[in-house]
Amino acid sequence: MTHVLQPEPLTVEAFAPFGDVVAGASALPGGGNVQAINAGTAKRYDDLAQVDTTDQGGRTMVSLCDAVVRVGPIEIDLVERHPLGSQLFMPLSGTTLLVVVAAGDPPFTAANLRAFISTDGSGVNYRKGTWHMPLCPLGGEARFLVVDRDGPGDNCEEFHFPDGERPLVEIRL
Amino acid sequence: MTHVLQPEPLTVEAFAPFGDVVAGASALPGGGNVQAINAGTAKRYDDLAQVDTTDQGGRTMVSLCDAVVRVGPIEIDLVERHPLGSQLFMPLSGTTLLVVVAAGDPPFTAANLRAFISTDGSGVNYRKGTWHMPLCPLGGEARFLVVDRDGPGDNCEEFHFPDGERPLVEIRL
Repeated sequence: MTHVLQPEPLTVEAFAPFGDVVAGASALPGGGNVQAINAGTAKRYDDLAQVDTTDQGGRTMVSLCDAVVRVGPIEIDLVERHPLGSQLFMPLSGTTLLVVVAAGDPPFTAANLRAFISTDGSGVNYRKGTWHMPLCPLGGEARFLVVDRDGPGDNCEEFHFPDGERPLVEIRL
Repeated sequence: MTHVLQPEPLTVEAFAPFGDVVAGASALPGGGNVQAINAGTAKRYDDLAQVDTTDQGGRTMVSLCDAVVRVGPIEIDLVERHPLGSQLFMPLSGTTLLVVVAAGDPPFTAANLRAFISTDGSGVNYRKGTWHMPLCPLGGEARFLVVDRDGPGDNCEEFHFPDGERPLVEIRL
């Protein structure tokens, strides 16, 4: 039997067990300290994502990632995690984004998964060690700014769902 | 006499003495190691900006900044620098951006300044200690993702141009 997941909205509160949500261009930032800077010509929302990259001699790296846009329903064939560092993906042009994370430990089933959709250009910062599906944009341009870890050590683990047991995520935009 | 600056295009090569340029949503990334990831469904351009935030117990912080959009010509009343850390500003919706930096040491005149314009949504990462004008978007939505330093110590110095000696930047878009 195929297990079908219904995604929920990606909000700061709902995603808190897995990491941070950083508001996109048209969204209201959640959390953070707000301050006026530059003689009142700018407003800053400080400290919205916990960058955690220094384990085992790691450093913070800034990259870009262009991803293939997918259409639903989305079959989840694997989840991965980075045990040594956090990983932030920020859409640079309002891309709709599917985020699927797994709670607990492998072997996973659909019961371990939660699916989130960001439709306002918001990005996600996976906490160090959070199991997640690879980057999955659902529309628009799909370039992301990435803030994650570079350094020694094995920083990627994968869990592959067996054939016939791959959960599906329904997409209704 | 008013000194008038003509901005040049913001390119990786031209801006190299002052920091990094990170390509916007529609620009071709310059520099960085390119690799295919996620079974070929994504392309990563690694390590495009040098994040340098750990002096004196600092850490990397991710923030958002909403800035007032300005219209030209732009009068430069001050430049500032952060002696303890780099500072990345990445437009989240393709904002046109004026970047003015100063070479050498204060007191500055217009002869110390260089002006750059990014019209393709690209962002800038000021190297630690680079003198620059405050954030100056020229159009569109003006939200930026900011990656800079949080920590102890005095991390902001300013130089104010005297009345009557403020350089002007001509804007022709």
